[in-house]
Amino acid sequence: MSIIEIPADSLFGRDNLPYGIFTVSAEADSARRVGVRVADKVLDLAVLLGDDVFSAATLNPFMAQGRAAWDSARSRIQDAIAADVADAAIFELADVALHLPVDVADYVDFYASENHATNLGRLFRPDSAALMPNWKHLPVGYHGRAGTVIVSGVDIVRPCGQRKAPQDDAPTYGPSRRLDIEAEMGFIVGTPSKQGTSIAPDEFADHVFGAVIVNDWSARDIQAWEYVPLGPFLGKSFATSISPWVVPLAALEAARVATPTQDPTPLPYLQGTEDWGLDIALEVEWNGDVVSRPPYASMYWSPAQMLAHTTVNGASSRTGDLFASGTISGPEKAERGAFIELTWGGAEPVEVAGEQRTFLEDGDTIAISATAPGVNGQRIGFGEVRAAILPAVN
Amino acid sequence: MSIIEIPADSLFGRDNLPYGIFTVSAEADSARRVGVRVADKVLDLAVLLGDDVFSAATLNPFMAQGRAAWDSARSRIQDAIAADVADAAIFELADVALHLPVDVADYVDFYASENHATNLGRLFRPDSAALMPNWKHLPVGYHGRAGTVIVSGVDIVRPCGQRKAPQDDAPTYGPSRRLDIEAEMGFIVGTPSKQGTSIAPDEFADHVFGAVIVNDWSARDIQAWEYVPLGPFLGKSFATSISPWVVPLAALEAARVATPTQDPTPLPYLQGTEDWGLDIALEVEWNGDVVSRPPYASMYWSPAQMLAHTTVNGASSRTGDLFASGTISGPEKAERGAFIELTWGGAEPVEVAGEQRTFLEDGDTIAISATAPGVNGQRIGFGEVRAAILPAVN
Repeated sequence: MSIIEIPADSLFGRDNLPYGIFTVSAEADSARRVGVRVADKVLDLAVLLGDDVFSAATLNPFMAQGRAAWDSARSRIQDAIAADVADAAIFELADVALHLPVDVADYVDFYASENHATNLGRLFRPDSAALMPNWKHLPVGYHGRAGTVIVSGVDIVRPCGQRKAPQDDAPTYGPSRRLDIEAEMGFIVGTPSKQGTSIAPDEFADHVFGAVIVNDWSARDIQAWEYVPLGPFLGKSFATSISPWVVPLAALEAARVATPTQDPTPLPYLQGTEDWGLDIALEVEWNGDVVSRPPYASMYWSPAQMLAHTTVNGASSRTGDLFASGTISGPEKAERGAFIELTWGGAEPVEVAGEQRTFLEDGDTIAISATAPGVNGQRIGFGEVRAAILPAVN
Repeated sequence: MSIIEIPADSLFGRDNLPYGIFTVSAEADSARRVGVRVADKVLDLAVLLGDDVFSAATLNPFMAQGRAAWDSARSRIQDAIAADVADAAIFELADVALHLPVDVADYVDFYASENHATNLGRLFRPDSAALMPNWKHLPVGYHGRAGTVIVSGVDIVRPCGQRKAPQDDAPTYGPSRRLDIEAEMGFIVGTPSKQGTSIAPDEFADHVFGAVIVNDWSARDIQAWEYVPLGPFLGKSFATSISPWVVPLAALEAARVATPTQDPTPLPYLQGTEDWGLDIALEVEWNGDVVSRPPYASMYWSPAQMLAHTTVNGASSRTGDLFASGTISGPEKAERGAFIELTWGGAEPVEVAGEQRTFLEDGDTIAISATAPGVNGQRIGFGEVRAAILPAVN
């Protein structure tokens, strides 16, 4: 039995307790199972709590149990780590491998940052109004590819596809030349809803289990050519990376804030009485240099509104559904969460480790991290989502 | 033991043999299992072939075994039904319930009919060119909601959402007033591909297990307001119906035809040596009246090109991926596979059971059926996808 030591400034203290899926690196055929991160330790929850739902290879069975079970597990974990913990339950973070935490059901990506939508509108459609007429009436979103959601640490093969610049006569095939990131937060549904019903904004916490950091990799040249009229497809579908630790919604109580003022007032189905804006601070590192600090609190639409909108037509929501916010861009240049914005379409390079850079080059590494206010002035961490760019396969 | 009698004109003879998932209606707690349809019988494949892969509740485990296993099963079934069959394996079609045949992984919908894309371009964007500049260079597609793919027979709750007609000042919330169908064919992936690799057009039959009829229900008023710039979302995501029988690709040999001439010549990654146009004849019944006969052979892009395009950026494909063709519309008015086209945006009503009709009303029933050439001048059937419209839930 051992005491779990938690430094006072740990981002992974007793008020965070994110869930992940791990194996033990040194053990051949180590089974995937659910762990909780406490300081620099990973605790095996099936051992700690004696509950087989944590012997699963994904969080889905636990998430499907619903909010009462989540609250109960959280309080049992807090009790357990306040006392001595069986050594068989304790692993060093450095000794485990982390895996995709959820079996992703459907993946939806939103477009909820007014700054981002305005910037992209100017860049993609310079001759039109930056924001489309619908943008302030509904959280614009679309379905992405669930099968290519991967966990932090899996590297990204540069995608190939059709690109056509406006001045070209015809499209050509080849590796994307404008490979980009999108720094986002993602929300994972635990409690499902039935086809033909909808989830009101105030039911958000009954359905959503937790949050992760998302890097929605984007091939801008492929996207720009393909996306009319049915939206992004291959420009996005090659890979979407998420952080390995799912921070439970219960850990984000102190991070809850009002969204920016919504004018015009949204339709009633998008109105709730609870604040679900979130004061999450992100940081984008490019080859080790911090190039942007996107503020989630600036997002126009809340995740509760996103889920309400997704289901207002009666679409069911399943355990494992992932919906992401869209690029988080604050009003300042150094708060933009995509390089197409940060470098204004490549026209204004940024300095990265002493070089002038626009889009991603082979060998580059991106790490996006995030923290949020916790209780008692502490902060809680989401960890990071990190990947390197590998050359295209031709 | 019994002989399975197959009438000479059966659409479900020994050269079709579609797979589905059934339970026995009269048995409480009847387990879902794999069946094959032969004439008006459903044969329990776990019993017929003594193979546990057919005891599964979806076709996914069998589909994941790959093409050699599919070919072997098909030939074992053909051998088995040529002789006496154990009575325990035989059920009357009327005595079973049919279920969603596959656990749908990702769902992609294409837009592969030149007639449909031209008609919709004229209706949605009357002031621009009907076809977007990319349309003849790539099969335009987007991801749909896999979690709301349902089987024939499950009725459709009229979706609610935001609608805004061009003359309205602001959007309003309510039941869709322009509920429509899209008659399509869908293709189901059996053999997966890895992230970072792609599937060439000539590898189509190694990966695709079979085909179904798809009705991609569409709320045109919701779609028209929401779809810029990221594509359709709630206008489509409430429900997508598929037929219960998955016709194996091996049954479609006699249906293979060249696509219409593709000009300009597609980029090399979209070129194959094999013809994968398909001479499938669809029929749309509205409250019992046939209102359209969409010809699949008119589709500009082949399903082999759709799969090659989907994976050219390195996106993985999973067992259970469903990709649909998009609305099938032939050049003639009576060949249009969506009512928005058939009634030209509602301006030209059609007669349905003695009434003038434009979009779907509560209580309407739609049935889409399809057949294709088989061997020896026979035809093979896909069965039908059928559903009624239920009133909105407010």
